[in-house]
Amino acid sequence: MPNKILFKNAKILSMKSADIQDGDLLVVGNRIAYIGKDSKQYAPFNRIIECDGNLLMPGFKNAHAHSAMVFLRSKADDVALQDWLFNVVFPKEERLIIDDIVNLNKLAYLEYLSSGITAVFEHYYYPLASAETAENFGIRIVLLGAYNAKTLAPSQLNELYNYFNNKKDSMVSYMIGFHAEYTSNEDCFIKTKEALSLSHSPFFTHVAETEQEVNDCIKRYNMPPLKLLVTLGLYDNGGGLYHAIYLNDEEIELVKKHKLFIVSCPASNAKLASGIAPLTKYFKAGINIALGTDGPASNNSLDMFKEMYLAAVLQKLINKDPIAIPPFEILKMATVNGAKAMNLHEADILAVDKLADLIMIDMHAPNMQPNHDIIANLVYAANKGNVLLTMINGNILYENGEYFLSESKEDIVKNSYVSIKRLTE
Amino acid sequence: MPNKILFKNAKILSMKSADIQDGDLLVVGNRIAYIGKDSKQYAPFNRIIECDGNLLMPGFKNAHAHSAMVFLRSKADDVALQDWLFNVVFPKEERLIIDDIVNLNKLAYLEYLSSGITAVFEHYYYPLASAETAENFGIRIVLLGAYNAKTLAPSQLNELYNYFNNKKDSMVSYMIGFHAEYTSNEDCFIKTKEALSLSHSPFFTHVAETEQEVNDCIKRYNMPPLKLLVTLGLYDNGGGLYHAIYLNDEEIELVKKHKLFIVSCPASNAKLASGIAPLTKYFKAGINIALGTDGPASNNSLDMFKEMYLAAVLQKLINKDPIAIPPFEILKMATVNGAKAMNLHEADILAVDKLADLIMIDMHAPNMQPNHDIIANLVYAANKGNVLLTMINGNILYENGEYFLSESKEDIVKNSYVSIKRLTE
Repeated sequence: MPNKILFKNAKILSMKSADIQDGDLLVVGNRIAYIGKDSKQYAPFNRIIECDGNLLMPGFKNAHAHSAMVFLRSKADDVALQDWLFNVVFPKEERLIIDDIVNLNKLAYLEYLSSGITAVFEHYYYPLASAETAENFGIRIVLLGAYNAKTLAPSQLNELYNYFNNKKDSMVSYMIGFHAEYTSNEDCFIKTKEALSLSHSPFFTHVAETEQEVNDCIKRYNMPPLKLLVTLGLYDNGGGLYHAIYLNDEEIELVKKHKLFIVSCPASNAKLASGIAPLTKYFKAGINIALGTDGPASNNSLDMFKEMYLAAVLQKLINKDPIAIPPFEILKMATVNGAKAMNLHEADILAVDKLADLIMIDMHAPNMQPNHDIIANLVYAANKGNVLLTMINGNILYENGEYFLSESKEDIVKNSYVSIKRLTE
Repeated sequence: MPNKILFKNAKILSMKSADIQDGDLLVVGNRIAYIGKDSKQYAPFNRIIECDGNLLMPGFKNAHAHSAMVFLRSKADDVALQDWLFNVVFPKEERLIIDDIVNLNKLAYLEYLSSGITAVFEHYYYPLASAETAENFGIRIVLLGAYNAKTLAPSQLNELYNYFNNKKDSMVSYMIGFHAEYTSNEDCFIKTKEALSLSHSPFFTHVAETEQEVNDCIKRYNMPPLKLLVTLGLYDNGGGLYHAIYLNDEEIELVKKHKLFIVSCPASNAKLASGIAPLTKYFKAGINIALGTDGPASNNSLDMFKEMYLAAVLQKLINKDPIAIPPFEILKMATVNGAKAMNLHEADILAVDKLADLIMIDMHAPNMQPNHDIIANLVYAANKGNVLLTMINGNILYENGEYFLSESKEDIVKNSYVSIKRLTE
């Protein structure tokens, strides 16, 4: 008999709309089996969680991450992006081995759980190690596989795409991309296009994160990066752009035309002084915006509450408009829009038959009073300390500050330091 | 015999410098009695707290607050400051009675404790009710008393100033100010100046929070607000400016000349789209900057970690400079500089004979790993969920998510709703 967990007397924010209903939510196995007021009919249950009016909502989708970069948190702060990448990050990353990815990802995943993040779009080295680590840990992950002249042929990318995306009930899925125009060459463009044609995968990459990146691309190719990538046919199957701070109007039209997702990382962009993405403009153009933390080395935390707050208030500031983007739209960016961008259509909202990737938020905490507007409270007043419970794929991995994993938190932290020390000392 | 509490095996960030030492910290009564590695000599103790490498540091000083405005949290979001004040806030505030101040302040104080805030510069109605509430609750408070044509004469402000500031070991101190130029008239200027002359109190008020405020003041008085207030002699005893987003160069010189404090509220200023104060410019001019949350209705939280993060990253953004203000300077703004602005010279740093207003931060939380740079972690990576313990005046009021108060958290929340409902329904 599958596991049956009943959440009783909850407030339920499905994210299908902004409505919040009072009721119970039943999880059977890894899916939501019932939402309503008449849960008794499904008794008996393996566990009944008395929610006491606390809020259930879909878990946050971290739509852009380099989790293992946690080893560099607060190691080289206060440096501009290009300098930071080429002189700090890349030389240290050359020392990375597979064990490091395993150790460091798990440290980041602990932070994801305590922040209510249930799925992560992972863009980093050794994706197969990340896949295995995520499966063992129990977190949902979308990998961005990239063509690499040394090890992977386009046909191999296609093979990986089919392997991961056809596995039933897997925690791992797969898309194809590369780091960025400025770290790729024409061979990489051609081979990636070949892999995309074979697999029909959407394409994701860093685009227009800094003014320098755009200017350098124009010098090299006589056009800005998004236009270049579209022209090369890389976006023929759709996909998205990480960051997208500096797009011109023609490029915004290309984003609309190809129905591309923009994954904004406001904290990282602010910390590196890269700039503020014009999200209000994108939002008004009907573009689907998701949010990501980026790597913890440039953020420096893995906290979607911080991303939501920044996404909201930075738009008010740059537009001198206290309205800018309504809070429910911001909350969508951190949840359903992220799920769409990550192709997690079964983990987007709370509804019967959807995957049970959900979180419980403390409605009794002082900072959540009064409850005039729970959506606004979530965006403007809440913080990760308000996350009481994180469930992924029907499993409770975090509850009331405690982790429920196959390994102890202490062991994960201890093992991470083996990698941290070797990589940074 | 006074209470003797020993914090054992802590990391201690005194904030006298950025150095962090390993050791023990002894609190006797309401003061720090010893810091070092040889605490055994002081045995026996009433309680020994094993800190296990967690960090002790001075509590945050919230240098600008209207705590009771918590009743309006998420009630009228996404409205510009002047509209919000005159059409939403002021009409509702007319209904406020003393009981509301008591009920609502306590709700805000719960949030302060969970955020590691140990002292608050309180600027709101019914200061005597706030004084009594803070004393009973156990939080340190600095009141900003204001001339009010209906009830208080200048001699009475002077009397209150002497009463509160001469009370030995009191949790309450007092300074004189008023709301803002744009809500005052010439009678108020004259009477406030009279009270300041009698009391020798520093003067604090809202200054240059919006461009409209500055332009309106120039229309009325032919000079911007800070220049006006200095010209009127209101700053003859020193004091400070809340917000200070729009100062011209002549006014920055006046701030320096009169050694005034600037209390910046980056979250509130962002949320109301008021603007970004040029803190880097002020910092480079040697001005003492403190941080405040402002009221929870415009923020919408009471969280100095959020203020620190925003103070840091917004400066990087507006200056296109990933360095801008170093993290230790940001941490000073939230602690020692706030204590200076609030005249809390005995509660500024962790040192022998200083008041025991301190917090303990979780160094084992995933988001605080690795520990390459603890100061940077505190500013860029930490959040209020990392606050393990808040001690004010030698009393532990908050520890591991639990409150230790004369009233239960549940009763405080329940009573606050009596006021919230009456004021907003």
